[in-house]
Amino acid sequence: MTLDSHIHARILIACKDQPGIVAKISTTLFSLGANITESAQHTTNPLEGTFFMRIAFYIPRIESVKEVIQDAFAPLIKQFSMQFQLFLEEERKRFAIFVSREDHCLLELLWRQRSGEIQADISMIVSNHPNHEQIAQQMNVPYYYIPVTPEKKLQSERQQLQLLVGKVDFIVLARYMQILSPQMVEQFPRRMINIHHSFLPAFVGAKPYERAYERGVKIIGATAHYVTADLDAGPIIEQDVLRIDHGYSVKEMKAVGRQIERTVLARAVRWHVEDRILVHDNKTIVFT
Amino acid sequence: MTLDSHIHARILIACKDQPGIVAKISTTLFSLGANITESAQHTTNPLEGTFFMRIAFYIPRIESVKEVIQDAFAPLIKQFSMQFQLFLEEERKRFAIFVSREDHCLLELLWRQRSGEIQADISMIVSNHPNHEQIAQQMNVPYYYIPVTPEKKLQSERQQLQLLVGKVDFIVLARYMQILSPQMVEQFPRRMINIHHSFLPAFVGAKPYERAYERGVKIIGATAHYVTADLDAGPIIEQDVLRIDHGYSVKEMKAVGRQIERTVLARAVRWHVEDRILVHDNKTIVFT
Amino acid sequence: MTLDSHIHARILIACKDQPGIVAKISTTLFSLGANITESAQHTTNPLEGTFFMRIAFYIPRIESVKEVIQDAFAPLIKQFSMQFQLFLEEERKRFAIFVSREDHCLLELLWRQRSGEIQADISMIVSNHPNHEQIAQQMNVPYYYIPVTPEKKLQSERQQLQLLVGKVDFIVLARYMQILSPQMVEQFPRRMINIHHSFLPAFVGAKPYERAYERGVKIIGATAHYVTADLDAGPIIEQDVLRIDHGYSVKEMKAVGRQIERTVLARAVRWHVEDRILVHDNKTIVFT
Amino acid sequence: MTLDSHIHARILIACKDQPGIVAKISTTLFSLGANITESAQHTTNPLEGTFFMRIAFYIPRIESVKEVIQDAFAPLIKQFSMQFQLFLEEERKRFAIFVSREDHCLLELLWRQRSGEIQADISMIVSNHPNHEQIAQQMNVPYYYIPVTPEKKLQSERQQLQLLVGKVDFIVLARYMQILSPQMVEQFPRRMINIHHSFLPAFVGAKPYERAYERGVKIIGATAHYVTADLDAGPIIEQDVLRIDHGYSVKEMKAVGRQIERTVLARAVRWHVEDRILVHDNKTIVFT
Repeated sequence: MTLDSHIHARILIACKDQPGIVAKISTTLFSLGANITESAQHTTNPLEGTFFMRIAFYIPRIESVKEVIQDAFAPLIKQFSMQFQLFLEEERKRFAIFVSREDHCLLELLWRQRSGEIQADISMIVSNHPNHEQIAQQMNVPYYYIPVTPEKKLQSERQQLQLLVGKVDFIVLARYMQILSPQMVEQFPRRMINIHHSFLPAFVGAKPYERAYERGVKIIGATAHYVTADLDAGPIIEQDVLRIDHGYSVKEMKAVGRQIERTVLARAVRWHVEDRILVHDNKTIVFT
Repeated sequence: MTLDSHIHARILIACKDQPGIVAKISTTLFSLGANITESAQHTTNPLEGTFFMRIAFYIPRIESVKEVIQDAFAPLIKQFSMQFQLFLEEERKRFAIFVSREDHCLLELLWRQRSGEIQADISMIVSNHPNHEQIAQQMNVPYYYIPVTPEKKLQSERQQLQLLVGKVDFIVLARYMQILSPQMVEQFPRRMINIHHSFLPAFVGAKPYERAYERGVKIIGATAHYVTADLDAGPIIEQDVLRIDHGYSVKEMKAVGRQIERTVLARAVRWHVEDRILVHDNKTIVFT
Repeated sequence: MTLDSHIHARILIACKDQPGIVAKISTTLFSLGANITESAQHTTNPLEGTFFMRIAFYIPRIESVKEVIQDAFAPLIKQFSMQFQLFLEEERKRFAIFVSREDHCLLELLWRQRSGEIQADISMIVSNHPNHEQIAQQMNVPYYYIPVTPEKKLQSERQQLQLLVGKVDFIVLARYMQILSPQMVEQFPRRMINIHHSFLPAFVGAKPYERAYERGVKIIGATAHYVTADLDAGPIIEQDVLRIDHGYSVKEMKAVGRQIERTVLARAVRWHVEDRILVHDNKTIVFT
Repeated sequence: MTLDSHIHARILIACKDQPGIVAKISTTLFSLGANITESAQHTTNPLEGTFFMRIAFYIPRIESVKEVIQDAFAPLIKQFSMQFQLFLEEERKRFAIFVSREDHCLLELLWRQRSGEIQADISMIVSNHPNHEQIAQQMNVPYYYIPVTPEKKLQSERQQLQLLVGKVDFIVLARYMQILSPQMVEQFPRRMINIHHSFLPAFVGAKPYERAYERGVKIIGATAHYVTADLDAGPIIEQDVLRIDHGYSVKEMKAVGRQIERTVLARAVRWHVEDRILVHDNKTIVFT
């Protein structure tokens, strides 16, 4: 087996759990000459639960490989009423980064993408501030400065949508401090990732570090989640925390918080790019 | 210096911050022949903040040592309007453990006390369930089974108070699943420690694991705090967390959660016993 | 499906990786009417690697169910030269705890077993010290005090072996501070778990905390591993760490270290009991 | 008090412990009109130990402030045979970054310096590879490409020393993969910080990730330490770890390891810049 003669693909499956699913799926893959490299599954409930599976595999490079795989699975998809998604690693995803004034999450994503840890292309950076233009230029990424004011918010979103349409597969809100309209969010269901600078569901909304300071918590955190119409209530992808103590000012909490924010967001983006995330009942199944 | 000829003491100080406090305190201790073993301080704000200090020291064993120390500090206490607390290590604190059905926090406290990690005496175990009597007997701790029903809750509390009065310096609610009345709470200001089975302020109140499961969080936690009249809103002493993933059922979350609960509670109790905790503005300063 | 009419079973498989294995295994399980509840696999290398799999499943309760499953897999075992292990959950494992003076790991195991987190039976406690007899009695576990001296070490081991033979499936060295002879170790290949009080491979051998103190490390840890003839060099099952700082004395390092030791050991024992551990090339594959 | 009219200073003190030191130090600072913002102390041993202290304070801006402070402490320095160091925050430290091929630690330091988290100036980047020149230019930091071969190693070091002399206060080896000669190391005692990509003392020397993989550890780490003539044996400043499992290849271990390396190194550099680190008996006291 060589990389040239083979394609690396991934399928994501969701359906009602019932005996024999894994047998049928793996037999189908075997019939296609696939060589499984990763396989993970999850059932929400031993009885009448929902079944989720992610399989990554090498398959001989043939013409119309996607159609061939899709056709082979067609009977199963019908029989089990499967939600079935197929991805080829060589069809790289493209994403836009939305960012406001703070650049730590932006820089982290640019760096991880350049180092090959995030295997996707950054199509553009969109910001309501002009000040990241230089770094965008250095990285050869188009930079769009679109100011946002309460009055012309929808107009700004229309501008953003025009830039995005057909150009991106998903969006990362990398400390973008504007609340998007439900209409905007609807355009990217399960394809818009936000980093919230608190350990959700604690401190939903504005100024989480200030409120964490006020409450006197001993641990602060960050949460990456898919954006839904409800503020900070979408499916959580990843969270992490750091210990603090009584000696931390709000400013110091923000400084250490930045480290968690960028780490958590980078992990979530990577998992999204590698098709490791399924969503069910406003919760994520993450096959790491 | 030998242990026999010396006493180990601790002072806790709180007052408005101003230049010269540390100089005066340390000079006073020097004049008493004290040998400082630990010293920590904190100021809430560089300008017009509140100053907090904990000092542990050995002092030659003399008659009426508490009065001697108190007298030496009297001028400072007056000059700086200090809140001043003095503790001798050899005057061991006594506490009661309140517990309902689940025994993991109870066992942890019993074990840590027996191993010497918690240098205080357990005066009694109070429970609204009869089922920990055997372990109490084995550990030679009096066990009081006081059933609690909504109707006769205040009556049960009166019974509890009669047992407690003069017998304990503080109370630990080690998964005691009854909400105490404000009148009961008032009897033990900053002297009643509760373990809440979530990462506060997330999931205040009942069934935190069920709600964490529902929300799909990736990290669960526990919080030890002083009890105030507001449910789960008292000063946080300690928190810790553990990673979970989509595969955890509520039952499994409870199982791993128990490990955090008992660790976090044991740390909080130890710090309270060692006079490491000061409270200010509903937040704790913990000198570890 | 009900618990009464079904049996919960687990199989562990290891063989040379090749296409079609998963298809064959899952088809075989489907033919037996099995309902898979957990499944995990690992391949050491995409090309010519070794394949490992653990599957947990419910199967209808029939006569001689082990033989039936074994027979169904016989052709695969032959075709793929599989190492194949089958376990029924209801056939509970039995183990012995070896312990010296310190009781924290012993107590943790007793507590986790009693609370149902470790689903196995404790057949006996063996110690070179007499001082845990009371706790053994309270827990209704036979306690054997077998002193060990350098001269009569092999004689003591013969005594231990007589007690163990036919009575235990595995052994846990819960801070047993005697080095066992290779002959003794050989009797329990991959079935003797030790807790070492350091982050291996740092501080192999005696007095790890003292040496960690000497070296000035900022993190201390504990390691659970299967015992082999080479001291502290067997396959690592689990490790964990805690931060310390310059203020920790050796005594304080030991105190916090005890918390990691008992947690790490309890996890390792649980995984062993649930057949989650495979060994390959002196390393473990742990399907959690 | 305003920032303009005051100077922020720090003193580090080490001497034989004896009663009255803190009283004398704080009285001296009070006499200078100092306003203490941070104070931490440590004694290695309650009896005949060594005493360490770090005090940060504001002091009115006067002429020759360093001499004034130094003079005020002169009697104490003599009386207690103190090692006494005085730093003004406004006298920013300057450092050189040494780096080989991998850029993650370099980028982290550049980013943290630019964001103000590391309050020091980067005087130059020195590398045995030419490939970081562009990023250096973008950041306006002089870049010196000095190839190193076994034959002309000492010659290369002479070149490096010429660049460094009078230009830097300390050096950071940010994944610089050349072993420096003892003569070079001697020039920067306790002023050269290295990041080692393992949890020392495990995996001293070359290829730590490969050896961690081989040993099958469940946690990997990184260690920042001061460089001494003994390879990877200098005083440890900071360490951190991340969990891995059997599924990690060496390449994946390196990828996650990079995140710990850059975090640990950035913390160590920050603490060095803020004069938080004292060294005693090849160990660090870090006042965070």
